Amino acid sequence: MKRTLIAALALAASAVAAQSPAPITASVLAATQPGDWRALDPENTLYFDLPGGRVVIEVAPGFAPRHTANVKALVREGYFDGLTINRTQDNYVVQWGDADEGDAKKQRPIRKAERHLAPEFDRAIGADLAWTALPDGDVYAPEVGWSSGFPAARDPKSGRAWLTHCYGALGVGRANDAGSGGGTELYVVIGHAPRHLDRNVVVFGRVLRGVDLLSSLPRGTGNIGFYEKPEQRIPIKAMRVAADVPAGERVALEVLRTDSAAFRALVEARRNRREGWFKTPAGKIELCNVPIPVRDAPAR
Amino acid sequence: MKRTLIAALALAASAVAAQSPAPITASVLAATQPGDWRALDPENTLYFDLPGGRVVIEVAPGFAPRHTANVKALVREGYFDGLTINRTQDNYVVQWGDADEGDAKKQRPIRKAERHLAPEFDRAIGADLAWTALPDGDVYAPEVGWSSGFPAARDPKSGRAWLTHCYGALGVGRANDAGSGGGTELYVVIGHAPRHLDRNVVVFGRVLRGVDLLSSLPRGTGNIGFYEKPEQRIPIKAMRVAADVPAGERVALEVLRTDSAAFRALVEARRNRREGWFKTPAGKIELCNVPIPVRDAPAR
Repeated sequence: MKRTLIAALALAASAVAAQSPAPITASVLAATQPGDWRALDPENTLYFDLPGGRVVIEVAPGFAPRHTANVKALVREGYFDGLTINRTQDNYVVQWGDADEGDAKKQRPIRKAERHLAPEFDRAIGADLAWTALPDGDVYAPEVGWSSGFPAARDPKSGRAWLTHCYGALGVGRANDAGSGGGTELYVVIGHAPRHLDRNVVVFGRVLRGVDLLSSLPRGTGNIGFYEKPEQRIPIKAMRVAADVPAGERVALEVLRTDSAAFRALVEARRNRREGWFKTPAGKIELCNVPIPVRDAPAR
Repeated sequence: MKRTLIAALALAASAVAAQSPAPITASVLAATQPGDWRALDPENTLYFDLPGGRVVIEVAPGFAPRHTANVKALVREGYFDGLTINRTQDNYVVQWGDADEGDAKKQRPIRKAERHLAPEFDRAIGADLAWTALPDGDVYAPEVGWSSGFPAARDPKSGRAWLTHCYGALGVGRANDAGSGGGTELYVVIGHAPRHLDRNVVVFGRVLRGVDLLSSLPRGTGNIGFYEKPEQRIPIKAMRVAADVPAGERVALEVLRTDSAAFRALVEARRNRREGWFKTPAGKIELCNVPIPVRDAPAR
């Protein structure tokens, strides 16, 4: 009897949905037009090639121009090639670079790039800062939303904006000194958004594809997830700027524009899930739970 | 000059910290007393034994008494032993059970437990509901905090409370029908808290140790992370109620009481990080970012 009642209620809900179909993720994506998507700029795309495959990263020069340029310079002089992933901390980050950095005799030399840069933890809110607001609120910041495809936060009082530590965010490792980073040590978030890191580290990109190659790595058993034995580290085959890779060998991806009506519809479809499985739509959505769709570029 | 200035500022911050040391995680934990910790109840502890090791789970009968009892009944009749992890979806969940469930001829029979139960998505707020509030706000729920060691939410208007989908949360898989679950299919959150699932699924526990054995599994390449080939599934050696395991073979853990002054101090130490590395304390903390410390029980 109970199960008949539940079935009847489910049926009633389906009937309502059929009369006035509220958009769900699948229908929003199916209705997108070519102009809702943007191709990646090869100059702002990094390939992080591991034994398991390729991680595709988009960088955000609008938020950290000096660090973005410096990491590209490091990549272009082959700094990361043959170095290792040294740390995989569960529910936190995967981190890579030179395990010998700091040891003047053993560390890998840098040819043209900088080893240290003054921090770019945030930037000024200005006319050049694209902004699509998420009005649902946030625990950590006065305002959150998206800027040029990146989840971000801003504070009108201080006039500052910054990229947020959502899943897949790319940041610059550093020691205690705020200026001790520069891009030789990088990390990607593989757990619940560690938003307390916002404005304490330079975030300058995010993984668009292949984050699972990082998130499924064995966790390091040393302090804060460092691998205890050198042979446990994961070798880096290469890091490349996509522009330096022959066009035919690039990964042709498109990202849904976060300033599009389609993206606004997607946010609503995720805020209040109307797929038949859901019984209680959440009513709100948190910044880092909003997916930013990425697809293979359609054949032209 | 710039680096000298930064060093000087860092030094000044250190000097302030030395004069009036604000608590950090390490000092809060070092100052805990034995009474701040609680031992696990073996009747509310599950061992999920995989080829890679043991996952220790605490269940919450106060939130989902029928599902908790039913899963224990399933465990006790050996239902899960030899079944498989069938789904690992990146930044979402690991799910296990009988890959043939629903196929009447092939599915594993149930002897005494129930296959389906009416949902327990939430419960009444009552005098028996322990509550430690987190006043920092939340995007999804009117109030959040902890109840008997579990991150939870509640809504005074509706008079209901529920466990939240934080990293490591244990829930009951179901099909579209709200009553189609019962505990034969279980999942654990391995990504950014999918809080939109709150009140749509029965959450009845959380992983205390070994979540990395789940989160580092290869991601399934099928739809929503299902393994495409049967041989890709991860075999379950056994699930056990700790009370059924000889005392000498149990994992002796203790959990910091979420209703203790030590835990309140920990929340503040995490809300405003005072370790030397942090330059800008967040000022707020989100529910799922608060760790609930677990330790090996000290020798008595």
